[in-house]
Amino acid sequence: MSKKTKNFRPRARRPKGFEDRYGALANAENALIGAAAGVYHAHGFEPLSTCALEYADCLGKFLPDDDRPNEGVFAFTDDDQQWMALRYDLTAPLARFVAENYDPLPKPLRRFAVGPVWRNEKPGPGRFREFIQVDADTVGAPGPAADAEMIMLAADVMKAAGLANGEYVIRINNRKLLDAVLAGIGVADTDEGAIQRLRVLRAIDKLDRLGADAVAQLLGEGRKDASGDYTKGAGLDARGINAVLAFTQAGRAGLEATLSALDPLMGASDTGKDGMDELRAIAETVQACGYDDGRAMIDPSIVRGLGYYTGPVFEADLRIETKNEKGEPVRFGSAGGGGRYDDLIARFRGQPVPATGFSFGVSRFAAALHALGRLGEEAHGPVVILALEADQMTSYFAMANELRAANIRAEVYMGGSGMKAQMKYADKRNAPAVVIVGEDERASGEVTVKNLNLGKQLSGQIKDNKEWREGRPAQTSGARQALVNMVREALNR
Amino acid sequence: MSKKTKNFRPRARRPKGFEDRYGALANAENALIGAAAGVYHAHGFEPLSTCALEYADCLGKFLPDDDRPNEGVFAFTDDDQQWMALRYDLTAPLARFVAENYDPLPKPLRRFAVGPVWRNEKPGPGRFREFIQVDADTVGAPGPAADAEMIMLAADVMKAAGLANGEYVIRINNRKLLDAVLAGIGVADTDEGAIQRLRVLRAIDKLDRLGADAVAQLLGEGRKDASGDYTKGAGLDARGINAVLAFTQAGRAGLEATLSALDPLMGASDTGKDGMDELRAIAETVQACGYDDGRAMIDPSIVRGLGYYTGPVFEADLRIETKNEKGEPVRFGSAGGGGRYDDLIARFRGQPVPATGFSFGVSRFAAALHALGRLGEEAHGPVVILALEADQMTSYFAMANELRAANIRAEVYMGGSGMKAQMKYADKRNAPAVVIVGEDERASGEVTVKNLNLGKQLSGQIKDNKEWREGRPAQTSGARQALVNMVREALNR
Repeated sequence: MSKKTKNFRPRARRPKGFEDRYGALANAENALIGAAAGVYHAHGFEPLSTCALEYADCLGKFLPDDDRPNEGVFAFTDDDQQWMALRYDLTAPLARFVAENYDPLPKPLRRFAVGPVWRNEKPGPGRFREFIQVDADTVGAPGPAADAEMIMLAADVMKAAGLANGEYVIRINNRKLLDAVLAGIGVADTDEGAIQRLRVLRAIDKLDRLGADAVAQLLGEGRKDASGDYTKGAGLDARGINAVLAFTQAGRAGLEATLSALDPLMGASDTGKDGMDELRAIAETVQACGYDDGRAMIDPSIVRGLGYYTGPVFEADLRIETKNEKGEPVRFGSAGGGGRYDDLIARFRGQPVPATGFSFGVSRFAAALHALGRLGEEAHGPVVILALEADQMTSYFAMANELRAANIRAEVYMGGSGMKAQMKYADKRNAPAVVIVGEDERASGEVTVKNLNLGKQLSGQIKDNKEWREGRPAQTSGARQALVNMVREALNR
Repeated sequence: MSKKTKNFRPRARRPKGFEDRYGALANAENALIGAAAGVYHAHGFEPLSTCALEYADCLGKFLPDDDRPNEGVFAFTDDDQQWMALRYDLTAPLARFVAENYDPLPKPLRRFAVGPVWRNEKPGPGRFREFIQVDADTVGAPGPAADAEMIMLAADVMKAAGLANGEYVIRINNRKLLDAVLAGIGVADTDEGAIQRLRVLRAIDKLDRLGADAVAQLLGEGRKDASGDYTKGAGLDARGINAVLAFTQAGRAGLEATLSALDPLMGASDTGKDGMDELRAIAETVQACGYDDGRAMIDPSIVRGLGYYTGPVFEADLRIETKNEKGEPVRFGSAGGGGRYDDLIARFRGQPVPATGFSFGVSRFAAALHALGRLGEEAHGPVVILALEADQMTSYFAMANELRAANIRAEVYMGGSGMKAQMKYADKRNAPAVVIVGEDERASGEVTVKNLNLGKQLSGQIKDNKEWREGRPAQTSGARQALVNMVREALNR
């Protein structure tokens, strides 16, 4: 390559559903990850990074999207002909990790994790095939207090991300309640019934996005969407559809009122009773800790899409309006979710290992917070030292070093262009000031500091070009030794 | 899954060459990433996260490992039958990003990036197929000052990671010098010559690991390794082999001495003269900025394995002995490398975009620093509130909250076991103290704080079991309101 020009010129493009994050957007992601990591660390969680590729049988088939080959994952065969897949979440790899290292690990295991996950979704607008998750899980924790803690932790992360009470809510439900409703309308405990149950879960999971009418179709025969794609339904009859929809609509204001509204829907089902007991215990702890002030509520319409949840499920919702790619106001919806998955580690070990956790979808959530002006934008860019004489680079580096030693972000211009382009660059970088040492300054042992913020401000006031040039109101010169003070002054004005 | 026990039970295992990092090791990685990000941010670099999957033609074929299908990457076809691959570094995706977003980006573009990369290496001991890199690059920077800055930045990151002068060195070379040597011994500027040149680069890149004799074989006919695998050589004759080895051994103490030793090896080659001019300019800047105090040196044996470098190349070496998996002392070697790649963006744009950068191999480097006791280990774990009465979880949560509000890391025990197992758990978590509120304490409005650090210390001194139990020297009880003060006292003893 260094010696030959190849004729082939690839087109620079990303695969569909994959995104880059640069500058403020990447800062927003990092800030959100930092906020979550801080909350989890303070609560005694330890970091874990598992590998991105796993053997497919270790991940299992729990994704809601079953219309794709390999159940919605990116998969291929390794040298030894075993199927490998990119992880679709951080929970399935945690289960593999715990099963692989069971004995030496502390029990319960409290771990948090950050990293990209991949879903082989059908490419389409707003469908991301790669996103960052940040998760916390407690493995080996059988009681509802561990679920309640996950809910409160999720609320604490939302708060640490800069959201105020009322701007977010953690919704709580228990899948066992829905199981009781399904048993009541005759969904059998067979392989066929399991498929039907999964279709019901997926239908309910779309309530937010599609509304009750569309979900009724998905609970019944099926539904053709705007693009003409047909999704086969769960095959419930009218009575069944009504029972399921009534259940999802049983949410009331206040934890107690919702529990009372749900109770009569459970009939005599043991599963329903179990679910209600768990839900009540979780609700009571959340309430006693004061999170029923709007931060947490029971919502029977929350079921979550992943197949491995065994009881309690949670969802964190952003309640402030955000804007979509077209600038239209939209309800943001879910920023993450979680729940209890008592059977996931049992897949490997044969004996149950109760576990509960919560996962934030960092990429989408951070993008929303950034769009709302809550995260990511820095007040200004670095101070830029102009590079006006090629043989003076060392002295520019020395100036930048002095500024950094005084905790001022600074860089030397590294391009190959002249002064005008360098000023344009400083402007584009949102530099608060530039440092100018040309031949004249150098000869007299001086530096010039140009305050770009003040310059922008004044240029609105001073219309006379001549007055501007002669006065140079946003520019000061002084002795080279006074550099740090001069820049600091410019930053403070 | 929640209703059925499946007969299939997968074996919990990772694919070969993939690692998990838990606790202190993950902390070490995060600390190293934080240190690098801090240095790069202070120097005006902006964060960029590109996607993990790229179209294979966008990544290009620059990996040193050409013995594998798809040139050492993990690749598969997408829905549209285009080949996608997991990125093998963060530089090729940067080139794609710059080419895709050229006009609105500031030029030069200063970006740093952190993330996993994947290499489809032949699995084997110590061969990692996934590792984290942290990179900084300046795109649109033609001059040697930008290369010198990369070298100094790499040294600054080593320092920020906690290494002292003398414990690390950045080695500098220029590939053009080797090109001049190769031209001198008759390696032609043809496709065949290019393959020969690549084989020479790969052979030299193994000097550290295999030594001069093995490299001489790889420069000549070829070499059979201990496992019996045969690597075809570059096909140089004895004179050629000697010339290349003499070049790699031209390093001297001091930048000037090395430049003087290299000069006569360049003959009349224009490429050699270019390379020497660049190397001299870089060396002079590095020297003028004071980094010739052992932090930076010229070493002609550094060539780096990636195919896209066009001139200056750098390598960061850890100079302290580390231990391998068997606990044997080993020379750690390269913690990262970089160089100038003026043609990589030209692949897309057709016109050159000069660029230079540096990449740290975080996973391996952090593991070494952790093994050396430099990074990752926290002084202690969280304070653990024992959960002795199932109906008192809320009061335990309240205590943990109070401690965290006082900036004390704390958690409530979340398992389902009794007091003895809870104490064992606290021990395993390296908790500095446990908080005990049993029925008696609760009745009298008291809490007991057990100082585990002090307990360990004293248990070495007090041999009499009875004296120990009666005296409870590492345990204090007091009013519930005094909780935070009591724990703080335990932490300070």
